[in-house]
Amino acid sequence: MPTGSGPGGARAGSRLDQEPRRYPGRVTRILAHYDIAGPADGMAERAAALALEQSIEMPLGAVTSGYVRDEVVARVERIEPLGPDRHRVVLGLAPATVGRDAGQLLNMLFGNCSLQADVELVDVELPPEVLAAWPGPRHGLDGLRARLGAGRRALTMTALKPQGLAPAELAALAGTFAAAGLDVIKDDHGIADQTYAPFAARVTACQQAVAAANERTGGQAVYAPTLSGGPRQLAEQVRVVREEGVGAVLACPMLLGLPVFDELVRHEIDVPVLAHPAFGGSRIAPPLLFGRLFRLLGADATIFPNHGGRFSYSPATCAELARVALEPWGDLRPCVPVPAGGMTVDRVPEMLGFYGTDVILLIGGGLLSAGAELPARAREFVDAVRGSAPAEEVRV
Amino acid sequence: MPTGSGPGGARAGSRLDQEPRRYPGRVTRILAHYDIAGPADGMAERAAALALEQSIEMPLGAVTSGYVRDEVVARVERIEPLGPDRHRVVLGLAPATVGRDAGQLLNMLFGNCSLQADVELVDVELPPEVLAAWPGPRHGLDGLRARLGAGRRALTMTALKPQGLAPAELAALAGTFAAAGLDVIKDDHGIADQTYAPFAARVTACQQAVAAANERTGGQAVYAPTLSGGPRQLAEQVRVVREEGVGAVLACPMLLGLPVFDELVRHEIDVPVLAHPAFGGSRIAPPLLFGRLFRLLGADATIFPNHGGRFSYSPATCAELARVALEPWGDLRPCVPVPAGGMTVDRVPEMLGFYGTDVILLIGGGLLSAGAELPARAREFVDAVRGSAPAEEVRV
Repeated sequence: MPTGSGPGGARAGSRLDQEPRRYPGRVTRILAHYDIAGPADGMAERAAALALEQSIEMPLGAVTSGYVRDEVVARVERIEPLGPDRHRVVLGLAPATVGRDAGQLLNMLFGNCSLQADVELVDVELPPEVLAAWPGPRHGLDGLRARLGAGRRALTMTALKPQGLAPAELAALAGTFAAAGLDVIKDDHGIADQTYAPFAARVTACQQAVAAANERTGGQAVYAPTLSGGPRQLAEQVRVVREEGVGAVLACPMLLGLPVFDELVRHEIDVPVLAHPAFGGSRIAPPLLFGRLFRLLGADATIFPNHGGRFSYSPATCAELARVALEPWGDLRPCVPVPAGGMTVDRVPEMLGFYGTDVILLIGGGLLSAGAELPARAREFVDAVRGSAPAEEVRV
Repeated sequence: MPTGSGPGGARAGSRLDQEPRRYPGRVTRILAHYDIAGPADGMAERAAALALEQSIEMPLGAVTSGYVRDEVVARVERIEPLGPDRHRVVLGLAPATVGRDAGQLLNMLFGNCSLQADVELVDVELPPEVLAAWPGPRHGLDGLRARLGAGRRALTMTALKPQGLAPAELAALAGTFAAAGLDVIKDDHGIADQTYAPFAARVTACQQAVAAANERTGGQAVYAPTLSGGPRQLAEQVRVVREEGVGAVLACPMLLGLPVFDELVRHEIDVPVLAHPAFGGSRIAPPLLFGRLFRLLGADATIFPNHGGRFSYSPATCAELARVALEPWGDLRPCVPVPAGGMTVDRVPEMLGFYGTDVILLIGGGLLSAGAELPARAREFVDAVRGSAPAEEVRV
C-alpha cells in the first residue's frame, strides 16, 4: 500500500506495504481488509459469507449468471491469523460494483457488515483505475502552505466557540486570532445555521474581521466556516462562501454524507476543505476513515482526536493516521493531519516532536480559557509553532 | 417516551415511558440518553464532561456569555446506575442548537462523543417544538396498506438481486415477483447506478414489468428502486422516478447522509420511502437509529436485521425497534418495521407471531434460491402472509 502509480509507502515493516494481488487479464480488485473476531475453526466459512454479504447478498448456488459468479461476487483473497480469536480477512471487490460513487464505495466496503459486530474494516487498497476516479485534495499540504505564506513550517489552527455567541462576538474573536497570527480560524463544528448566528450573517462578519486583521498585520490568516445541512441549504452556504471570498471551509463528511462531501469537492468548492470527524465513530479503523478515505474524497486537512486529550486514540493510531494521510498514494496530494481535542500550548513542542512539521496544530478551548490573556496566549501558540521551523523559513 | 402531544407510549414497565423534565418558563430540552462505561466513582465528572463535549466544547469557566452558560450548555439531567461499571446519563440539550437540521440533530446527540468509545447513545426524547420540525412518514402503515390494497394484513417485500444482472434480467425477476402477488419489490441495496444496470434503464424496465404484471393480475405491486449518490445524481434519479410513475423508493440514510434523506422526504419524493440500514453500525442503539430517528426523518418503512438470520440482533432488540417505529409519537405516522436478512418462507408463521401483522416481511435470497421453483416459492410466501390476516380482510 498504496496502490496506484505513485512511489508507494513502502516503509519497511509497515502493515500496509503489501502489493495488491493482480488478476492477469482482468482489472485489479479493490482489496478490503477486515479484522474478524473468531477462531481459525470456521473462519473460512465466515470469510466466504462476508464475501457474499458485501457483494451479491444471496446464496452463491442461486446465481445463474456467469458474469455475476465470475466477476461481481467478492472473493476471499487471503485469511491470516492475528491471534487465536482474531483473523485478518482480505476480500477482493469488483471495481464495477463501485463506479465513481463515494456512497457506493462505502456500501461495498462496509454497508451491511457494519451491522455485524464481529467485523472491523481496517484498510483498503484501491487499484489505479478506482483511485483515479477521485480527485483527492486539490490543495494539499503545499497548497495550504502557499495560501498561508507559511514556508515549510507547521501550521496553526483555532476554533471560534462557543456556539450561542452572536455573529459580532464570533467576529471579534476571529479578528483577535487573526491579529495574533493564527493561520486558520475555523468555526466550531457545532456552529451550523442556528438562529443566534445565522450562516450568512456570521460568515460575512467573521470573514470581514479576519480580512481587516490581515490588512493591519500583513498576515494571511484564513477563516473556515462550517458547512452543514442538506443540499439546498448547502447550495446557499456555498453561494455565501464564494461571494464573501472566504478562504477555506470546514465540513463533517459523516454528517453531510460522503457523497455530498464528494460532490462539494468535485463541483462546488474551490478553496481548501477541512474535514472534521464528528459522527465518525464506527468499526472502521480511524487511520482508514479519517486518513485515507477522507483524503481520497478531497479533504485538504483532516482533524482527528490527538492522544492524551479528551479522546482515547493511542499514539500508534494517531501516528498511523498522520502517516496514511501524508504518504505517497497514486497522484493524490497529501492531506494534512490536524491532531486536536483538548490540546494546550505547552504541548506544542511535544506534538511537533511527534508529528514533525507536516502538520496543523489545532488549539481551541486551550486558548479561550486564557480569558483576558487570550491575545497573549494565542501569540504564544503562534510563536511556539513558528519557532519550530528552520530559521530561514520563519515568517517575519 | 414519547414526548410531544400524542397519547404517548406509556406501556407499563417500558424503559422509555419516563416523562421528560420540563423547565418552567423555558422551552423543554432535548433529552439524550447515553450509556457510559465506568464506575460510580467519577461518573458525575464524566457526565459533566460529556455535557460540555456535546454542546460548547470548551471549559465552562471560559464562557463569558450568560446566555451560553444558562441556555446553550448541555445539562446533566440525571445519572442512574445500570450496574457496577455502567451508568445511564441523561443530558438536556438546547433545542436552539439543533433547529431544523437533521445533521445538526445528530451532531448534538452524537457528533464528537461518537469518537469516545465509552459512550453509547441509547434513546432520545424530543420536546414538541422539535418533534414538530420534522415531517415523519408521509404515508406510514395506513398509507402503505391503502396504496397496496392490503386491508389490515401484513405486507410482503422481496429484493431484486444479484447486482451484476442487466436491466432486462432484473425486470424479468420483478415481473415474476409482481405476478406472484408480492406487495413491494425493491432493488437490492447494492444496486446503485453501475454500468451493468444504469439507473434510468433499470428503473424504466423494472417499473414497466411490474406495471404489466399488475395489469394482467389486477394486483397493486409496487417497485422501489434504490436511490444513491450525491445531490446531482439524486436529482436525476428523482426525475426518472417521477417520469416513470414509480410507486416507492429505497434509500440508505447513513450512506446518503441524514440531511440528504431529510430533504428527499421534505421536498423531492412524494411516494413512500423505505429506509435501509446499510452503513448504520455504530454505538447508537438500533431501535433509536432505525426505529425512532429514521421514522422522524420520514421513513415509511424501516428495514433491519431480524434475529436468527445473518446478523446478531437479539429478539429483544428487534421487538424494541418495531415497537418504537410503530408507537404513538406526537403527530408522526407509524413507520412499518421490516425484519430481514436471511429470512425464509418457513419462518413466516413464527415472524408473524413475533411481530403481529403491523409488519412487512422481506425475503430476498430465500426466494431466489428456489431456482426454477421461484414463482411457486414466491406464491407460497404471499399465501403464508395473506393467510395470517383475519378472513374478512384477505384480498381475493
